[in-house]
Amino acid sequence: MTNIFTFIGGSKGPWSVKKITTVIGEPLASVAAIQIVERDTQEALAGEWLVRGFTSNIRYATLDEVKALKKVQPELSRREATCAAMILIKKSDKWWELAQDQRRRIFEEQSHHNSIGMEYLPAVARRLYHSRDLGEEFDFITWFEFAKSDLSKFDELVNRLRASEEWTYVEREVDIRLEREEQNSHMPVKEREDDRE
Amino acid sequence: MTNIFTFIGGSKGPWSVKKITTVIGEPLASVAAIQIVERDTQEALAGEWLVRGFTSNIRYATLDEVKALKKVQPELSRREATCAAMILIKKSDKWWELAQDQRRRIFEEQSHHNSIGMEYLPAVARRLYHSRDLGEEFDFITWFEFAKSDLSKFDELVNRLRASEEWTYVEREVDIRLEREEQNSHMPVKEREDDRE
Repeated sequence: MTNIFTFIGGSKGPWSVKKITTVIGEPLASVAAIQIVERDTQEALAGEWLVRGFTSNIRYATLDEVKALKKVQPELSRREATCAAMILIKKSDKWWELAQDQRRRIFEEQSHHNSIGMEYLPAVARRLYHSRDLGEEFDFITWFEFAKSDLSKFDELVNRLRASEEWTYVEREVDIRLEREEQNSHMPVKEREDDRE
Repeated sequence: MTNIFTFIGGSKGPWSVKKITTVIGEPLASVAAIQIVERDTQEALAGEWLVRGFTSNIRYATLDEVKALKKVQPELSRREATCAAMILIKKSDKWWELAQDQRRRIFEEQSHHNSIGMEYLPAVARRLYHSRDLGEEFDFITWFEFAKSDLSKFDELVNRLRASEEWTYVEREVDIRLEREEQNSHMPVKEREDDRE
């Protein structure tokens, strides 16, 4: 069983692209919609580009953090959560060459990644996909879902994280904002992790 | 660029199989040789089976541990290292559901994984490949190379690790011992990590 998902940017898909912002580094080609398939495919399926990623085990969170998270984090695919953000991140070699304790320190003790995120629960649901180990252009795909009324809250969250020490290691970031119809079935619901890198 | 390697068990390859031991769980089909290709392939290339894995960043080691390791760890492909062990490991769901601090504690503070390994350097060279996130049957492929004269030392290392708390989470383990001709070019030398799970 694989946990690899393929995100396909193209002309069709249940998620309509509202805006693509290149935060830092190279842009991604503009597309009208995103489609997510629950398998490892290299066929662009009529798309402009694709990025693959896998869900995995927790990489930084401690037991206390996981317990706190589990109490408040919502599932994906909530009926009212018709807005999504797909944020693609690539960190520098300098980040990846750090030892585990150094990355943990920057991630949580200095940048408060989990604890900042916790303040926005249960409004924002999210899932992390790891892409670097598949040789993709990005290291992570982070996927967020929220109601339209929580959009400004979500923007605040993202801005706070971008101002953190951890973000000084981000060398490429593309922020894609999406919307879907309220009734659409739009996302596989398989879940395997609780991390929030 | 991908860091995925494919290990193919079959009738030919630079590494001749001397012995396959099923330590726990399901066995793997017996093969005469192992071939390692530096890419992600699902073609068995005349092999009986294949297992894929990727090298990745450090998952547990701290900066002090990494520094100590770098001082003494040898490269793969040393001329005199004509013996190898390919040890395939699958850990339980219980292990993977643990938080990062819990896994780190069992891995090092209780099982002394790194510090036991350090005692056998520079005799034993090793590389870790991650397989679980690709949906493989095993979670890890661990690859070790050593001189024939260090075989009993290597067996001691493996036995000490198998007696650790960490190993109570191993639900499948297959230990394949190999030999090659001294002159063979046998292994890609690309390296990306220093971890020793």
